[in-house]
Amino acid sequence: MGIPTTPPSGFRDFLPDACAARADAIARISRVYRSFGFQQIATSAVEELSVLLGKGGGENEKLIFKLLKRGEKLENAIKEGQELADLGLRFDLTLPLARYFSKHGSQLPHPFKAFNIGPVWRAERAQKGRYREFYQCDVDVLGSDGISAEIDVICAQLAAFEELGLSPAVLINDRGLLLDRIERAGVPKDKIAAACVALDKLDKIGEAGVLEELKAQGLPETLIAHDVAGAPAARDPQSERLRAIEAGVNKLVGRAAAVFSPNLVRGFDYYTSTVFEYRIQGAAGSVGGGGRYDRLTENFGGPPVPAVGGSIGFERVLLLLEEKGATQVSGPDYVVAVFSEETRAAAFEAAAALRKSGKSVDVYPGTGKLKAQFKYADQKKAKHVLIIGPDEAAQGIVKVKALATGEEKTHRLAELA
Amino acid sequence: MGIPTTPPSGFRDFLPDACAARADAIARISRVYRSFGFQQIATSAVEELSVLLGKGGGENEKLIFKLLKRGEKLENAIKEGQELADLGLRFDLTLPLARYFSKHGSQLPHPFKAFNIGPVWRAERAQKGRYREFYQCDVDVLGSDGISAEIDVICAQLAAFEELGLSPAVLINDRGLLLDRIERAGVPKDKIAAACVALDKLDKIGEAGVLEELKAQGLPETLIAHDVAGAPAARDPQSERLRAIEAGVNKLVGRAAAVFSPNLVRGFDYYTSTVFEYRIQGAAGSVGGGGRYDRLTENFGGPPVPAVGGSIGFERVLLLLEEKGATQVSGPDYVVAVFSEETRAAAFEAAAALRKSGKSVDVYPGTGKLKAQFKYADQKKAKHVLIIGPDEAAQGIVKVKALATGEEKTHRLAELA
Repeated sequence: MGIPTTPPSGFRDFLPDACAARADAIARISRVYRSFGFQQIATSAVEELSVLLGKGGGENEKLIFKLLKRGEKLENAIKEGQELADLGLRFDLTLPLARYFSKHGSQLPHPFKAFNIGPVWRAERAQKGRYREFYQCDVDVLGSDGISAEIDVICAQLAAFEELGLSPAVLINDRGLLLDRIERAGVPKDKIAAACVALDKLDKIGEAGVLEELKAQGLPETLIAHDVAGAPAARDPQSERLRAIEAGVNKLVGRAAAVFSPNLVRGFDYYTSTVFEYRIQGAAGSVGGGGRYDRLTENFGGPPVPAVGGSIGFERVLLLLEEKGATQVSGPDYVVAVFSEETRAAAFEAAAALRKSGKSVDVYPGTGKLKAQFKYADQKKAKHVLIIGPDEAAQGIVKVKALATGEEKTHRLAELA
Repeated sequence: MGIPTTPPSGFRDFLPDACAARADAIARISRVYRSFGFQQIATSAVEELSVLLGKGGGENEKLIFKLLKRGEKLENAIKEGQELADLGLRFDLTLPLARYFSKHGSQLPHPFKAFNIGPVWRAERAQKGRYREFYQCDVDVLGSDGISAEIDVICAQLAAFEELGLSPAVLINDRGLLLDRIERAGVPKDKIAAACVALDKLDKIGEAGVLEELKAQGLPETLIAHDVAGAPAARDPQSERLRAIEAGVNKLVGRAAAVFSPNLVRGFDYYTSTVFEYRIQGAAGSVGGGGRYDRLTENFGGPPVPAVGGSIGFERVLLLLEEKGATQVSGPDYVVAVFSEETRAAAFEAAAALRKSGKSVDVYPGTGKLKAQFKYADQKKAKHVLIIGPDEAAQGIVKVKALATGEEKTHRLAELA
């Protein structure tokens, strides 16, 4: 058979319990975001390539899944050697948000506090824990340049993590401070990007690795900052701002969650000052991050709109929850066994009555021996099996067996519902 | 500026209130599906083209958004004149489910009752009410050939419609009955598909239109069945089965929701017997439908698995709800005004206290005049504005203004939370 049963490499199916865990986490994160006054938005999965590539182009192009042109448009493109695609799948939720705000700003509150939870797609090499389709859970404040925007975003995300039983630290830095340091160290303009790329690997390849990379690039080893505890020390505005964010967050969450981290870079280009990253003690890599991107809306022809946002790395978070043994059961409260074709109507009616009282009730969707029906209830991790034989049906009673204990009781149906 | 701010043709952004309406409807449908014992699953948005095209290929190919191959693979494909794509976006949730069940069946309960809610993509000409990205809300029973599977699917979906305030009828037919009738009418084998296509248009072009099309194809006009009330009359097994489903559904929902409809076709090829379609009185077209597809898993090399499923046309449903004036408000319970930088901490703390009591609370994410902050609260359709000036902060009290009535009251913060 030529037709595969597995999803393409880097893509996934979710079994019912995994799906229940995802739905539960999304519901919790949404509830917390909403409780902070963020309003949910949604954008299309597909964007014009020009939106995704922005002004710069190049660097994101490798990430993007492009949609093949169709019909005549494709024929012409092939004939005339033009681009074969003009649409692509979004690779984050920030670029679409900047487009969204540029389009719909006049219909939105100002400042605008948005949250967006959904899949993004990146054509990266698939590996354990890295997928080509994964969820992000973003909050953003557009239209405010005050530090309260940063504090709001970070506190909402820390509260969301808390709601999931996680207590990450949040490393905070400022792109401006970082670039100042690099400049002061005498790095020439054309090597600044390389210096950032090297520092960004601190977490992955360690200090020795970064030192080696700096040396290989002819960059000074002093670029790696060590004064984590004392800094930011200088009395420049960026440092003051960073301190105020740090203090504001820590006061509100009631613990020293925010930590100045002078070597923090964060990958995306569009950040203009504050950057931050969530880390869980004992877990490698980050569980999310974000920053301020005050000029992104300029891409869309509008004025620059001060904006700050953060993203929770949903797949990493789920992996951590799984490792902690947090599981969800997707099974129903009751499986109603179908004793015989004659009692099926009674089974369906009992189910309808129980559902009215808020229970999830599954009528065995076939005809088979009671043994098979009990096995089915076990496979579904149902809490109870409900049996209505002809005698029970005649008397208006039901037998209820609790699957955890094996205990069996008889109830009047009306009483149970 | 070359970069557009609108989504591509046929794709959409959702403003906060629209997004809240969607989220609410999805939550309701999910809750009902779950209450019937269906377990949520999810599959990837992207599938191998061979999965999407199936054995037949051709007919769905026009619908599919294909992903352009990348890097060396693309270069080789161009050089050697091979296909430029081997992946595509799913265009329904049924084919992916058949693949999923073929892959994961051994880890799933048998029979398997699944629900799946998510976007699908079709490269159709975009027009009012028809989009290239839209949601489907599917339930399916795999592994049961009994009529209880049909009844379960239809009753769960009728209950979901009911939960949204809609009471559709469900037209029911059997492909076998339809084909028998066409055969008995003397239609040659190579014209059966054309006869189905013509009948399928009854709703769109009316009886006169279909008669014209039948005549043009040289097909008998008697193909259109009129004995809706009496039929299915014959004592063949398909008719008996259809009657039993109709009676079963109507008994459980307590109204004559299910109606035998001898001209019903339903588009997809994979249906093998029962087909059904949900219709709202006074609204053109359907709000969903489904059928039995007992052979679809054979595509994936496995044995045939009896299966039946239905889909709610989510976008149509939302449009109807909107027309009925059902709206959702995405605004918070409170906007906390920030009187001055000095009182910002007090504002954040009041918000934290209120959130603990389950309220959604938005601290004004900027610094500005109270008037601007009240305008913001109005724009967000908040219920109350909470004001903490320096005097209030010192006394531990807050002023609360109800935006609907303009009424203003003073509370101790502790008492409010």
